[in-house]
Amino acid sequence: MEVFFLGTGAGIPAKLRNVTSIALKLLEERGSVWLFDCGEATQHQILHTSLKPRRVEKIFITHLHGDHIYGLPGFLSSRSFQGGESDVTIYGPKGIQTFVETNLSVSQTYLKYRIHFVEVSEGIVFEDEQFRVEARLIEHGIASFGYRIVEKDRPGVLLVDKLKEAGVPPGPLYKKIKNGEDVTLEDGTVITGSQFTGPDIKGRVVTILGDTRFCEASKELARDADLLIHEATFAAGEEALAHEYYHSTTTQAATVAKDANAKMLCLTHISSRYDRDAWRTLVGEAKDIFPMTEIAEDFKEIIIPLDKEA
Amino acid sequence: MEVFFLGTGAGIPAKLRNVTSIALKLLEERGSVWLFDCGEATQHQILHTSLKPRRVEKIFITHLHGDHIYGLPGFLSSRSFQGGESDVTIYGPKGIQTFVETNLSVSQTYLKYRIHFVEVSEGIVFEDEQFRVEARLIEHGIASFGYRIVEKDRPGVLLVDKLKEAGVPPGPLYKKIKNGEDVTLEDGTVITGSQFTGPDIKGRVVTILGDTRFCEASKELARDADLLIHEATFAAGEEALAHEYYHSTTTQAATVAKDANAKMLCLTHISSRYDRDAWRTLVGEAKDIFPMTEIAEDFKEIIIPLDKEA
Ligand SMILES: [Zn+2]
Ligand SMILES: [Zn+2]
Repeated sequence: MEVFFLGTGAGIPAKLRNVTSIALKLLEERGSVWLFDCGEATQHQILHTSLKPRRVEKIFITHLHGDHIYGLPGFLSSRSFQGGESDVTIYGPKGIQTFVETNLSVSQTYLKYRIHFVEVSEGIVFEDEQFRVEARLIEHGIASFGYRIVEKDRPGVLLVDKLKEAGVPPGPLYKKIKNGEDVTLEDGTVITGSQFTGPDIKGRVVTILGDTRFCEASKELARDADLLIHEATFAAGEEALAHEYYHSTTTQAATVAKDANAKMLCLTHISSRYDRDAWRTLVGEAKDIFPMTEIAEDFKEIIIPLDKEA
Repeated sequence: MEVFFLGTGAGIPAKLRNVTSIALKLLEERGSVWLFDCGEATQHQILHTSLKPRRVEKIFITHLHGDHIYGLPGFLSSRSFQGGESDVTIYGPKGIQTFVETNLSVSQTYLKYRIHFVEVSEGIVFEDEQFRVEARLIEHGIASFGYRIVEKDRPGVLLVDKLKEAGVPPGPLYKKIKNGEDVTLEDGTVITGSQFTGPDIKGRVVTILGDTRFCEASKELARDADLLIHEATFAAGEEALAHEYYHSTTTQAATVAKDANAKMLCLTHISSRYDRDAWRTLVGEAKDIFPMTEIAEDFKEIIIPLDKEA
């Protein structure tokens, strides 16, 4: 599980930062990639990576501002052109379906796959055996969602050597034991599943917020998260400006991470008013409050490790 | 008057060629720039040039395929954000207004300037004292227009030294004489305007076609043009493929230029199947038929000189 930043700028594209898009790489976990937002030229950014558009299974849109969605029609078209044939589900605020369908129909674009739309409201927006995604409204003047991506705990590894010692022959029983079930052998021996598996593998939590003011909902979404991705459009001290434009400062993002007891914070959606030298200052401001802070850059990847102590 | 290529690829963006956009720079002539098509990331390309979005006065869309229009909403938004306050007129096939308005309204984008839409049909789509733009339908399976941009002839330069010799004092009369009018001085002398101005400055003609099969309408649009910009999605010999996909080959483009008696041809909309080495071959194929051929590249500029013999 890795987070890969495709665009980390604010509002309009700049030379060093494209408009927003974040890829959550779940290649090991489910052979797929989830996109969060898709600003203009996201597909151009992808050209410079090893990401395969056909691997993109789900696209979560935080809000409908142009710098978060104008790359969606082009991405969807090119995905088809480049051989993508599996369905895609797009989650987003009301209006996203009209946006995509108008773009595709005006341009007479016919995809080789189906798009499913899920109009997001607060609560669980997706759940399967592996993952659950929860959404909450945050504060951006327009409906803007934060997403909490929860990986479910998995049973630990099967202790094969220990099973062999206990005289359990390899076979279909192993699957039941791995799932923690108790199993009775032919000779009547009862094998307690939990004694033959390692500790549960704790699922990870990643919180990806749309643009937002400093708000309580962000903290709830980020509660104990392994990684919180929070916008920091402005530097510390610009709280009035941030409030006026429905954005956040570095220190506000850090306060959310701290109050939520997150493990790590990554700042993104950085205004182009800040040049490369200023980025260090921005991270420093956040680190004073929450030491485990990084600043996103286009093409940066953050690995989210499994919790070894679980 | 210069043509500046912002995107010269076909269908989807590639590393070496972005999707279509062409800027006709009329900075000397009218202090403005006209865009022809606006594929995704046109605004990103502009970031690497000296073009100012606020200078863009008119945008002509050849057809509604995504690789020709998906950059329009982002360009229009950023133009406003970057201080553009003068109106913009967008010319294009039926559907362009719905496209732009849906994109802007879904994303709640409010521009600081007005957009005027002109739904293009065959004939004169724009005319003022300086320029006339004519459109004709070409063949692309979807409504696709070719544009013929005609600069009007202008009176030649005023021969100031000759006027002084004739005893005409500088003043408001000079303007009338420059416009070729006859003028009577206070002493009764009649000054014949045409004798005190250089030869008329012949206007230039640039023809910019949308995607198209080889067709007769292209030749009419390109008649005696100083520059014809014609798509060449495919290499010579791929005429069957070009026909099937409503595109052209290099030799078909060259034949249009030759039959139209154009002065120069520039090939664009080059498929990404052709790499840098192949580009030379493509130009060569066209040159065999029409020697004054160039191949477009992203960020290439072609100067269209005034005709000195006029
Ligand atoms: Zn926003
Ligand atoms: Zn086309």
